Amino acid sequence: MRILVLGGDGYLGWPTAMHLAAKGHEVTVVDNYMKRDLCFSLGGSLIQTPKLADRTIAFERETGLRIDVEIDNCANYAFLFGVVQERQPDAVVHYAEQPSGPYSMMGHREASFTLSNNLQGTLALAWAVLEAAPACHIVKLGTMGEYGAPDTDIPEGFFDFEYHGRYERRLFPREAGSLYHTTKILDTDLLHFYCRAKGLRVTDLMQGPVYGTETAETALTDSLKTQLHYDDIFGTVLNRFLVQAVAGVPLTVYGSGNQTKGYLNLKDTLRCVELAIETPATEGELRVFNQFTECFTVNELAKLVRWVGNDLGLDVSVANIPNPRKEKEEHYWNPANSGLTELGLDPVLLTESVMAGMLEEVLRYRERIKPELIQPRVTWEKGWTG
Amino acid sequence: MRILVLGGDGYLGWPTAMHLAAKGHEVTVVDNYMKRDLCFSLGGSLIQTPKLADRTIAFERETGLRIDVEIDNCANYAFLFGVVQERQPDAVVHYAEQPSGPYSMMGHREASFTLSNNLQGTLALAWAVLEAAPACHIVKLGTMGEYGAPDTDIPEGFFDFEYHGRYERRLFPREAGSLYHTTKILDTDLLHFYCRAKGLRVTDLMQGPVYGTETAETALTDSLKTQLHYDDIFGTVLNRFLVQAVAGVPLTVYGSGNQTKGYLNLKDTLRCVELAIETPATEGELRVFNQFTECFTVNELAKLVRWVGNDLGLDVSVANIPNPRKEKEEHYWNPANSGLTELGLDPVLLTESVMAGMLEEVLRYRERIKPELIQPRVTWEKGWTG
Repeated sequence: MRILVLGGDGYLGWPTAMHLAAKGHEVTVVDNYMKRDLCFSLGGSLIQTPKLADRTIAFERETGLRIDVEIDNCANYAFLFGVVQERQPDAVVHYAEQPSGPYSMMGHREASFTLSNNLQGTLALAWAVLEAAPACHIVKLGTMGEYGAPDTDIPEGFFDFEYHGRYERRLFPREAGSLYHTTKILDTDLLHFYCRAKGLRVTDLMQGPVYGTETAETALTDSLKTQLHYDDIFGTVLNRFLVQAVAGVPLTVYGSGNQTKGYLNLKDTLRCVELAIETPATEGELRVFNQFTECFTVNELAKLVRWVGNDLGLDVSVANIPNPRKEKEEHYWNPANSGLTELGLDPVLLTESVMAGMLEEVLRYRERIKPELIQPRVTWEKGWTG
Repeated sequence: MRILVLGGDGYLGWPTAMHLAAKGHEVTVVDNYMKRDLCFSLGGSLIQTPKLADRTIAFERETGLRIDVEIDNCANYAFLFGVVQERQPDAVVHYAEQPSGPYSMMGHREASFTLSNNLQGTLALAWAVLEAAPACHIVKLGTMGEYGAPDTDIPEGFFDFEYHGRYERRLFPREAGSLYHTTKILDTDLLHFYCRAKGLRVTDLMQGPVYGTETAETALTDSLKTQLHYDDIFGTVLNRFLVQAVAGVPLTVYGSGNQTKGYLNLKDTLRCVELAIETPATEGELRVFNQFTECFTVNELAKLVRWVGNDLGLDVSVANIPNPRKEKEEHYWNPANSGLTELGLDPVLLTESVMAGMLEEVLRYRERIKPELIQPRVTWEKGWTG
């Protein structure tokens, strides 16, 4: 198939592009280096990665396979329309969003940028597909954070409900915990509207926090590795903990640490996207999958990192610090996630050996860690305090 | 109280500003003439109205009361922050959105503009209030169109629901029929997020289509009148029918005409906004009221216009034309609307004499009607076809 990967320079985007190319698809990555630039000024990637021109050259050298590159902003409609028109993709994987909750809570400017980037990019994609390749299937990355922590089970997107003795089926009402996560509710609603009104085909993958550093392709050579963000703004929790364990900084558990989420390995993200592409949504369908494989509390993750880290001779401790976010720390948690398993997902679980492998990878880069990027610099109450 | 009316040049905004000033409030109107400009190129106002500088001079001449004016884009944060900082409002009435469903369905450019204008304006308002006047109460105009036409009752915003034997209370899941109406779902969600995260106080008035030409203040002199849009893009259905009846053009009923909505008189819009301001939402509260007074099918409205019009000697006929929209034409409809009545709303109903009064007003301007603006020029399927 012909596939576009929007946001193809990112932590997930680049490994996804390589994985799909390795499976025999014709892949084009699209990126404007927005996140790379933000990370350069605010955050840290443990692993330095070349830009896309060099990445694709290295990939072709290693595998003989070609990945095409287009550099511009996906919210630029003239550009994106041109790419879709020319490439005629069968599927577009849409990662091209500002993905950080803390960044979106820094102040008005960052909130406005997140809102504009995420929604105008999604809108441009919907229209480019409708106008230039209407049968194309959009696979958009959503987040489990859209649901918040309701006191009920969480369905995969839609639920049947009763109200005053009558019945309806709609998207489960979502209530997110950051402005970024709220923009993900909004982009789901945008795409859903164009599914209903104009027959767009969309799969929305409501993903939990991803951990991991390695896929079959990133392991081929150093210049194919993906970024690993460990700072308070762009780092997801387990990746942050891994770096903290290696740096000898106490693991920063926010609040009680009883917040529960569903996690998944980077390798499973690639597999889930591939499964969604292989069985596309039908015309007019918004299909929603909850994309995670195992649930943990933050305390459980910290304990596991400490356990495996100490085993490797690291001196790992845990610090419960005041929660910079506004979120429920004790809550019910029972989201459905059978959809992707039914499509064939066979998950990579978070075993001690997987954890040890990740810690060993981080150890290779220990001299690059900047401990000043680890403590929270953004609070929901006061914004940027760094 | 000190009150800002954003979108204070509009069909609702200008009468609202005058009404609140007449009630003794210190009113500032904010507008950038965006809708006036769009209407100039696409639509028609039956009644020519002066710009705000002249409107406020005329208002002061008639009443001795002053309304202040600020001209710029509410999505310009530096501007809006400055206005809120300087004026220190107790309440902001937020009408400053692109309000047309058909406009938002013309193509990508119009969808993108609607999304950007409506969400960036709302975001700038949330932040300006949080940063410069945090106790200020935001009264935002929403639309009943956010709910769509579910097969259940419709609550006022929030509902308690059961899912798999457990219970939660959230905003009722909404599913709108145009891109514009979808942006109204999104701006509700944006404000709701900042209520939860930062203690914003918001009332969201989910309004049905408004009809009417006159309020106590617009009746004082011709130059205080409000616009009356009768074209297919900016005209609401009953106002369109009134103009069609006078022009001798058959009333354009879209599809079967069994679509049911809740309507209200322009005078009641002003009263609802006033009631919301008098009893503000509490810190952190998103309070939702459904703002309509009577429900009609489109056929019932057409019949009433024909009846009263023929009585006035007009030759009124009705034409069921293919529906340019994608919407349920036969549906259940039972939305709650007790909240505003409980606050003291005593509705103006759509009697034959109210209808006759509106037709007589339109008759004064009959030579200004442009019949070419009446037939639908935008379809949900093909966008702009004019």
